[in-house]
Amino acid sequence: MRYFLELAYNGKNYFGWQVQPNQISVQEDIETRLSKILGQQISIVGAGRTDSGVHAKKMYAHFDYEGEIKKDLVKHLNSFLPKDIAIYKLHEMTPEAHARFDATSRSYNYFISPFKNPFTYDSAWVFNRTLDLDKMNDAASLLIKKGDFGSFAKLHTDVKTNICDVREAFWRVNDEGQFVFQITADRFLRNMVRAIVGTLVEVGIGKISKEDLENIIKDQQRSSAGASAPAHGLYLVDVQYPKELFINEIK
Amino acid sequence: MRYFLELAYNGKNYFGWQVQPNQISVQEDIETRLSKILGQQISIVGAGRTDSGVHAKKMYAHFDYEGEIKKDLVKHLNSFLPKDIAIYKLHEMTPEAHARFDATSRSYNYFISPFKNPFTYDSAWVFNRTLDLDKMNDAASLLIKKGDFGSFAKLHTDVKTNICDVREAFWRVNDEGQFVFQITADRFLRNMVRAIVGTLVEVGIGKISKEDLENIIKDQQRSSAGASAPAHGLYLVDVQYPKELFINEIK
Repeated sequence: MRYFLELAYNGKNYFGWQVQPNQISVQEDIETRLSKILGQQISIVGAGRTDSGVHAKKMYAHFDYEGEIKKDLVKHLNSFLPKDIAIYKLHEMTPEAHARFDATSRSYNYFISPFKNPFTYDSAWVFNRTLDLDKMNDAASLLIKKGDFGSFAKLHTDVKTNICDVREAFWRVNDEGQFVFQITADRFLRNMVRAIVGTLVEVGIGKISKEDLENIIKDQQRSSAGASAPAHGLYLVDVQYPKELFINEIK
Repeated sequence: MRYFLELAYNGKNYFGWQVQPNQISVQEDIETRLSKILGQQISIVGAGRTDSGVHAKKMYAHFDYEGEIKKDLVKHLNSFLPKDIAIYKLHEMTPEAHARFDATSRSYNYFISPFKNPFTYDSAWVFNRTLDLDKMNDAASLLIKKGDFGSFAKLHTDVKTNICDVREAFWRVNDEGQFVFQITADRFLRNMVRAIVGTLVEVGIGKISKEDLENIIKDQQRSSAGASAPAHGLYLVDVQYPKELFINEIK
């Protein structure tokens, strides 16, 4: 039987999602606890691989298990896991449902705090200079298209194509006065959101124009775009799958 | 000249506001940095003394200094202070303005998370059982009065009276699904908000009734009330002073 875990984690203390030799990863932490509870070696496959320090408010991972799932597995798993990882739901899925390949879209948020904040130093980028929200939104609209986003990709990665279908890209100011960027696409290249945020912030302070951004996108050279915004402001906030993959939630 | 600092701090790593031998306090951290910047020993007096682990989103402290205040003192101080203390404003005050004795009201918030949350483990109390918001608000209304709050006071403190004038006491659910308690009074007894929250939560889960709370208040025995809610969910969120004490803000 195939299952999906719906989960969240604070990336502060992890070297990203994916298992790496001699590093603490979210994937390994969950696999270790889940294997202990279920009494056999369990491997989980995540919806994506967040980088070191990046957070997830909603993430999915799949695993296979043929035994009986006991009541309160989610509760049990949460009490075993450290405080910076939370499992929200467990879903029984169709047998072939794949957390990575079946995801139809992913959404990220990026949080910028305009002043020093003792409560968000690990969860938002402090950026003191005045940002022009309208200019940033106007420029962000250029990103909403299916096209080559190589200008915002980490160099030397092994992906076959830089084509992404970006469906949503906008800024808003939340109740706490933070600038929040939301972007949704079918897929993202490595480092892409942080490179986009770094570039849009340059628009926000007037360092580059909307036209400059247009040229940067055309250019397809990572060196043209702005510096990457730091990891700790970035959150994976949603992953979407076709509804028919979900059989039922196990409580 | 007398000045007020308007500030915030994350209480997680501090043994409260007030200077104590061999412990890290917020007051001492600020005094040390401010003294270094101003080139003489500065003592600050806070609006109140938050306990170990309690946070402040808005707090005031006064100090005296006869020299010239240089431009960007707030910015300078923030860059010297650790990331869990932020100075928001510096006000020039009337000569006798006192951060503690002139405060006309103080407001606290208490945050309860109904589920494990990787982003608020240091800033909200995780309480898994279902809470009845209406019952808690109905009971909380009993607290809005000028009266003896000895039932919620830490024993053996040296205050002369347990009379407090509570002007506001209610619960709401915020966007994140957290239960947030707000209480405003002219003064608070030591441990009072946490004891009140602990008792109202017992109302929320149906362990005690509104009538029980009425008797607990009359009783004036700390042992009658519920256990104290943990420190890390508690925030000082506002302190009010007569407007005429503020001469001008120094930027």
